[in-house]
Amino acid sequence: ASASIDLDRTRRCGFPEVIYGEGKTAETIAQIASELRSRGERVLATRIDLAKANEISQLLPEMMYDSTARTLRIGDDLPDAQAKGNVVVISAGTSDLPVAEEAHQTLLWMGARVSMVHDVGVAGPHRLPERLAEFENADALVVVAGMEGALPSVVGGYVACPIFAVPTSVGYGANLGGIAALLSMLNSCASNVAVVNIDAGFKGGYLAGLVATQ
Amino acid sequence: ASASIDLDRTRRCGFPEVIYGEGKTAETIAQIASELRSRGERVLATRIDLAKANEISQLLPEMMYDSTARTLRIGDDLPDAQAKGNVVVISAGTSDLPVAEEAHQTLLWMGARVSMVHDVGVAGPHRLPERLAEFENADALVVVAGMEGALPSVVGGYVACPIFAVPTSVGYGANLGGIAALLSMLNSCASNVAVVNIDAGFKGGYLAGLVATQ
Amino acid sequence: ASASIDLDRTRRCGFPEVIYGEGKTAETIAQIASELRSRGERVLATRIDLAKANEISQLLPEMMYDSTARTLRIGDDLPDAQAKGNVVVISAGTSDLPVAEEAHQTLLWMGARVSMVHDVGVAGPHRLPERLAEFENADALVVVAGMEGALPSVVGGYVACPIFAVPTSVGYGANLGGIAALLSMLNSCASNVAVVNIDAGFKGGYLAGLVATQ
Amino acid sequence: ASASIDLDRTRRCGFPEVIYGEGKTAETIAQIASELRSRGERVLATRIDLAKANEISQLLPEMMYDSTARTLRIGDDLPDAQAKGNVVVISAGTSDLPVAEEAHQTLLWMGARVSMVHDVGVAGPHRLPERLAEFENADALVVVAGMEGALPSVVGGYVACPIFAVPTSVGYGANLGGIAALLSMLNSCASNVAVVNIDAGFKGGYLAGLVATQ
Amino acid sequence: ASASIDLDRTRRCGFPEVIYGEGKTAETIAQIASELRSRGERVLATRIDLAKANEISQLLPEMMYDSTARTLRIGDDLPDAQAKGNVVVISAGTSDLPVAEEAHQTLLWMGARVSMVHDVGVAGPHRLPERLAEFENADALVVVAGMEGALPSVVGGYVACPIFAVPTSVGYGANLGGIAALLSMLNSCASNVAVVNIDAGFKGGYLAGLVATQ
Amino acid sequence: ASASIDLDRTRRCGFPEVIYGEGKTAETIAQIASELRSRGERVLATRIDLAKANEISQLLPEMMYDSTARTLRIGDDLPDAQAKGNVVVISAGTSDLPVAEEAHQTLLWMGARVSMVHDVGVAGPHRLPERLAEFENADALVVVAGMEGALPSVVGGYVACPIFAVPTSVGYGANLGGIAALLSMLNSCASNVAVVNIDAGFKGGYLAGLVATQ
Amino acid sequence: ASASIDLDRTRRCGFPEVIYGEGKTAETIAQIASELRSRGERVLATRIDLAKANEISQLLPEMMYDSTARTLRIGDDLPDAQAKGNVVVISAGTSDLPVAEEAHQTLLWMGARVSMVHDVGVAGPHRLPERLAEFENADALVVVAGMEGALPSVVGGYVACPIFAVPTSVGYGANLGGIAALLSMLNSCASNVAVVNIDAGFKGGYLAGLVATQ
Amino acid sequence: ASASIDLDRTRRCGFPEVIYGEGKTAETIAQIASELRSRGERVLATRIDLAKANEISQLLPEMMYDSTARTLRIGDDLPDAQAKGNVVVISAGTSDLPVAEEAHQTLLWMGARVSMVHDVGVAGPHRLPERLAEFENADALVVVAGMEGALPSVVGGYVACPIFAVPTSVGYGANLGGIAALLSMLNSCASNVAVVNIDAGFKGGYLAGLVATQ
Ligand SMILES: Nc1ncnc2c1ncn2[C@@H]1O[C@H](COP(=O)(O)O)[C@@H](O)[C@H]1O
Ligand SMILES: Nc1ncnc2c1ncn2[C@@H]1O[C@H](COP(=O)(O)O)[C@@H](O)[C@H]1O
Ligand SMILES: Nc1ncnc2c1ncn2[C@@H]1O[C@H](COP(=O)(O)O)[C@@H](O)[C@H]1O
Ligand SMILES: Nc1ncnc2c1ncn2[C@@H]1O[C@H](COP(=O)(O)O)[C@@H](O)[C@H]1O
Ligand SMILES: [Mg+2]
Ligand SMILES: [Mg+2]
Ligand SMILES: [Mg+2]
Ligand SMILES: [Mg+2]
Ligand SMILES: [Mg+2]
Ligand SMILES: [Mg+2]
Ligand SMILES: [Mg+2]
Ligand SMILES: [Mg+2]
Repeated sequence: ASASIDLDRTRRCGFPEVIYGEGKTAETIAQIASELRSRGERVLATRIDLAKANEISQLLPEMMYDSTARTLRIGDDLPDAQAKGNVVVISAGTSDLPVAEEAHQTLLWMGARVSMVHDVGVAGPHRLPERLAEFENADALVVVAGMEGALPSVVGGYVACPIFAVPTSVGYGANLGGIAALLSMLNSCASNVAVVNIDAGFKGGYLAGLVATQ
Repeated sequence: ASASIDLDRTRRCGFPEVIYGEGKTAETIAQIASELRSRGERVLATRIDLAKANEISQLLPEMMYDSTARTLRIGDDLPDAQAKGNVVVISAGTSDLPVAEEAHQTLLWMGARVSMVHDVGVAGPHRLPERLAEFENADALVVVAGMEGALPSVVGGYVACPIFAVPTSVGYGANLGGIAALLSMLNSCASNVAVVNIDAGFKGGYLAGLVATQ
Repeated sequence: ASASIDLDRTRRCGFPEVIYGEGKTAETIAQIASELRSRGERVLATRIDLAKANEISQLLPEMMYDSTARTLRIGDDLPDAQAKGNVVVISAGTSDLPVAEEAHQTLLWMGARVSMVHDVGVAGPHRLPERLAEFENADALVVVAGMEGALPSVVGGYVACPIFAVPTSVGYGANLGGIAALLSMLNSCASNVAVVNIDAGFKGGYLAGLVATQ
Repeated sequence: ASASIDLDRTRRCGFPEVIYGEGKTAETIAQIASELRSRGERVLATRIDLAKANEISQLLPEMMYDSTARTLRIGDDLPDAQAKGNVVVISAGTSDLPVAEEAHQTLLWMGARVSMVHDVGVAGPHRLPERLAEFENADALVVVAGMEGALPSVVGGYVACPIFAVPTSVGYGANLGGIAALLSMLNSCASNVAVVNIDAGFKGGYLAGLVATQ
Repeated sequence: ASASIDLDRTRRCGFPEVIYGEGKTAETIAQIASELRSRGERVLATRIDLAKANEISQLLPEMMYDSTARTLRIGDDLPDAQAKGNVVVISAGTSDLPVAEEAHQTLLWMGARVSMVHDVGVAGPHRLPERLAEFENADALVVVAGMEGALPSVVGGYVACPIFAVPTSVGYGANLGGIAALLSMLNSCASNVAVVNIDAGFKGGYLAGLVATQ
Repeated sequence: ASASIDLDRTRRCGFPEVIYGEGKTAETIAQIASELRSRGERVLATRIDLAKANEISQLLPEMMYDSTARTLRIGDDLPDAQAKGNVVVISAGTSDLPVAEEAHQTLLWMGARVSMVHDVGVAGPHRLPERLAEFENADALVVVAGMEGALPSVVGGYVACPIFAVPTSVGYGANLGGIAALLSMLNSCASNVAVVNIDAGFKGGYLAGLVATQ
Repeated sequence: ASASIDLDRTRRCGFPEVIYGEGKTAETIAQIASELRSRGERVLATRIDLAKANEISQLLPEMMYDSTARTLRIGDDLPDAQAKGNVVVISAGTSDLPVAEEAHQTLLWMGARVSMVHDVGVAGPHRLPERLAEFENADALVVVAGMEGALPSVVGGYVACPIFAVPTSVGYGANLGGIAALLSMLNSCASNVAVVNIDAGFKGGYLAGLVATQ
Repeated sequence: ASASIDLDRTRRCGFPEVIYGEGKTAETIAQIASELRSRGERVLATRIDLAKANEISQLLPEMMYDSTARTLRIGDDLPDAQAKGNVVVISAGTSDLPVAEEAHQTLLWMGARVSMVHDVGVAGPHRLPERLAEFENADALVVVAGMEGALPSVVGGYVACPIFAVPTSVGYGANLGGIAALLSMLNSCASNVAVVNIDAGFKGGYLAGLVATQ
């Protein structure tokens, strides 16, 4: 077979392999998911569009699909009280929501306690400090922003925890499909900002989850 | 001769031609300056290093040289009381000073009233609002920043005047010699931010001066 | 809710928040517009395609839609006599029209007096000087051009007001989706040229409007 | 004065402002350091070359300079026993040493417990697993690599903690001054890899230190 | 006619001209294939989508089409026993399969002996050494990887034969359509890694085939 | 009206304005064409797809459309005997045909004598010298090539006339939409190679036509 | 020997091989020049700095060196009356002079009649039309410009001959070492503009010389 | 110590680790070389400038330094008769010599039979076929070229062996430090061209040596 699942990942890395849905058929995804389930692993698959999700749900009726995040989860029905740590996902504008939600779903799947702060981009500078209480004691933050990607730098000046910055492709022209926000975040004058790939809500969430749940 | 000075520029554009010093000899600069002086024009030359300035001062002893801005001015000894408008030059970090000072010298030469707010970059988010009174009623702002170039976006959320953003080449690695800050400013989510070339303190100052003195 | 409107923007910045329509549903746009209207604000939304505009007009019948500019305005039915200042929007080629019209609509919404000069690109060098009388006394200019983006530099040599240059993505191949025109404008040898993002007719118009109406 | 130190940073962010030495004079650095010392803060300055370090040591004889890392520290003479957490800095080749050492010095200054694993790049694939015991239980890793920047992805497959990947400019030609390694790390198929700027040993160390000491 | 087939290629280069299917009509492809067949040449055409393959099969019923590789072969029905050399095609992830299969088909057409090792990317570092026996004695390897493109560097450390690395466009954001993997492979610290164009499974296969069959 | 045709172009530049069809409606194109016709000018329009051509032919039945070149001409029905000069259009591969044909149509419209040499790319190095007699005495050459864009450099070594090189977007991956061929041609070690935009068959033809017909 | 001079070039291409001086020793250059002289060829060498020129003049006292153009010529002491054709070299700013002079020297060496028009960049738009009589009847133009590179487009609108545009690296920041001017020229809306490499005065001159002298 | 030499490399990869000299001190290089020698390995070090070579020769008098290739070899004094295979290194221009020589030295160190063909770039198209007999029966070719990098594509059309193309940084302006040649080679229309990093003579030689000596 062309897939060779890494079934030892949980022992080494704490969490099982996550399925990258792009360019895989519904059948392939369902098969990998089943194999993981049969080993007792919780399943997360990312980058699943609605049509593919519908196909998969025929094969795996127990899956939970989130259409904003475009993720699919199975088997992580954790009572809230057992959630660990405290992660806040902060996003700059309404259009950054899908990426923020991919981080959110990833954190739920990891069993982390997570809350959301939306639409507090820098053009309305009073909005962020008003909500400081919601995030200043977090274990880790995920900060999602497109266009000029300035939000992580500003958030960085308010907190003592690591920030995982996720640039998005939101914008047009000289945003270069997210490169502008990516470069901005890499050059942040705040010391506590680490960066992941453009639109990689999954990675931002995963890293924050590692910090918060360990 | 290889130089063909645009002697009609003041009538059309309000200010005479400014001498771009890079790649011109001290003799050429002195000669253009003299020709402009003989027409009664005020002289500004930019991008003049100290060695060249010393050479020029032999030929044109009345010139005023600013070694931070690397500019040279002649004949604009304006009484302060006659200065027009109100421009504030805001800079993010100490290393952005030379670019901010190039804007400053340009504004003085134009006869604009100008003040400076230094080192209020976004990593210390309380520093900017503390100084709001100094710039909230300006006719135009020049905002100078390197690294992630986030400052103009943040300033943009506080004011009702146009902002001329000047990206600087301050930083390293993925700052790409100032491209990161430039892209950041071009993608600003603040509506009132226009952008000039990297390290172009002269242009930022000139545009703010046009708004303030007209 | 995922949107957190900046309702204090008019006090700080002179004009209310403008709605960026890309990636928002008709419902979300209508809801934000209603909230702004209920506060007595004038509404501008940009990047609204025809289909979305039709949906919104069901919810907000009083909206005025411009299909070239792809903008939507509400509540700014200003008598012409009250328009302030004098802005001219100049464009290089026929294909630059949509971007020029986005600037136009923005200026109308701001209450600025505005006129248009179309298709005066540099390949027909006599066309621009013939129309000099229409723009030489403007308070600010918006100059829109694609391909090599040379027009703002040429216009810059004729006027004493600030120019807000808008590069467009018109062209092909080495135009790099507008990057060629953008770089051209950033490197203008005219001192009075500031630049905004590719295809950002809104920003060019907004900045010119700030200068003209203040 | 042109410097406006952020003296409240420790309260908000856990650690005081760090001095970026590039483009600052020895006098300016000594003055900022003294001001921080007088508030009881520990001092870290980065990107200080040997000549500048010698000048500063005249003014601040108590400083400790590391010529590989090009950093300067004051006042953090912490007994080893009080060091917190467990960070390992892993580097790919001998030429990556200066960047790895910048991370090392930063971690010492933060009071973290830190150890080093050098020259275990992927071309000798047996070298890394041989040293697994030294880093598999770390709280956070800093992984430093130039050229193709593959090391963080490989390390990522062995551990359950967050990895802060630091691309270096080591290499030539199509390494594009470190961009190749940077892109490689951003696109890592390992989920636990976050990235900082090229040659930013300081940032990689700082983020790992935040995770380990909190 | 607009096509001028290089009918002498086999004498000079060992193998006939291969048809690049992109942007050619089914008729043109069938005609070139027939002309090659009439000279007794084996035919390979690449980048043929399913619809075009169906059209061509009307005209050339003897063709063999592979829908994963998107290639078409005619006339190379070689008994396995006559296959020469030993090439292994190794791929990193399931999504890299089409590119790996293009290499595979090319090698079959050349008459090389070839086997496949799938889905052994670096995030599961134990998977590759487990399969070492399958490839350590190859004459040449083709290694296919997207995202960070680290696999060829790791494989390079295990073998004594040349490696032809094929970057793929698999990934998103800062993968830049495969440029990230391409740069990674060009900067490999393994000495035995040569590189071909992004998604160029054909070229990787062809070069390995030259080494193995000569 | 939004179009301001440059009706004096023939006097100044020898040929009338050419209509760039991209982003213009059939009506606009027909109207500009009619205005040019009414002045006695020959008409050329480029970048007209088949659907638009059909619409235009309703309004201007006398137009001649070439579906490979995607151009439209009116009123240049020149007897062959009157054609001037001698231009040869040479192309590298079959997929470069549309661009070569755009050059061809442009040259016909200019009244130049023109012939075509197709599919003589460098991978079959004997093909070009075999056809030397067809182009060695040309007044000017247009050389069209995609992928590595090497053909103009090779042709340059055989002839004494200027070569106008046209890079095409033919290829994939690291061809970067034609940038690879463009850079290759700009860096040609042959002295007689000038370059135009990617896919700009029109421009290559126009320049060769100027040389040949003057 | 490592040099293999192309001694047949004049027969095929009309002019002998030109020596590219960069990275060659004075001895190598003198030796190639002597070999060309012994065949009766005129010699041109480019990119020779003053120090190297001095060394060469020891070995070849008859050479003529131009320190602005950094070129060296031998044996082309043509009486002016025999010069052929009519080329004008137009440059935008004083700093573009060295590149314009490289074109000038190349044209003299080719035996072309050539004149110079300096410092007529677009910021002073009246300067160019004032000098129209000097260039409107040329056989070919070389137009040299840095920064935004707009001059060739403007000149293009005035003339009926081919224009060879030479972008220069003059400028800073977003000029990207001349890339901005290069892209600008490649995207010219004037039909008669062909482009050569950045700072390639030699090539611009050579191509214009081919047109003018043939 | 900071160096962890891969002493098992010869067993796995056929040849020992090669020392990359850039950024290592003479002491470090001498020490690694001695350790390799003490294991009976032949030593190759690359990117050693003359000054460093002189220092090293104090410590390791038996080393052989080549100042064009900037390489250092020890212990490979192989009788010519034992040399294996047949590699030809072909270079385009005189300035590409240092890179060609790095390949040459690498091949000698590997014990391969090697010959050189210099200065046969495409601008003199007759030079290459004249020397066909010298390389048409090679086991592998290394082809070195800067500027437009066309040579490997042309050579590819003449031979049946694999070609390892080495782009060089020779050229200026739009050569982008070798990127133009690199892209050209990656997009070669010849099937038998694989590519290594810019200026990587070592890698080109190493790969050809693997093919020829196995
Ligand atoms: N959205 C995502 N972005 C980046 N990496 C991902 C994403 N989803 C899953 N992955 C990673 O992709 C790897 C699986 O790739 P594959 O073998 O192609 O299925 C896993 O190791 C995950 O860590
Ligand atoms: N620092 C600067 N940055 C950008 N443009 C400048 C600068 N200084 C002067 N200029 C412009 O350069 C032009 C003069 O160029 P030149 O003819 O080369 O002397 C003037 O029109 C100025 O507007
Ligand atoms: N295919 C083409 N490529 C580049 N320029 C063109 C093309 N077709 C027409 N043009 C130029 O585009 C200009 C007209 O632009 P516009 O005013 O937008 O119609 C004319 O001056 C032509 O020189
Ligand atoms: N000139 C060179 N270009 C690319 N790689 C090289 C070069 N010289 C040596 N190497 C590789 O660099 C590695 C050693 O790197 P390091 O550990 O930094 O000494 C070896 O594995 C060699 O394969
Ligand atoms: Mg919002
Ligand atoms: Mg500071
Ligand atoms: Mg027009
Ligand atoms: Mg090593
Ligand atoms: Mg997998
Ligand atoms: Mg062909
Ligand atoms: Mg000038
Ligand atoms: Mg030569």
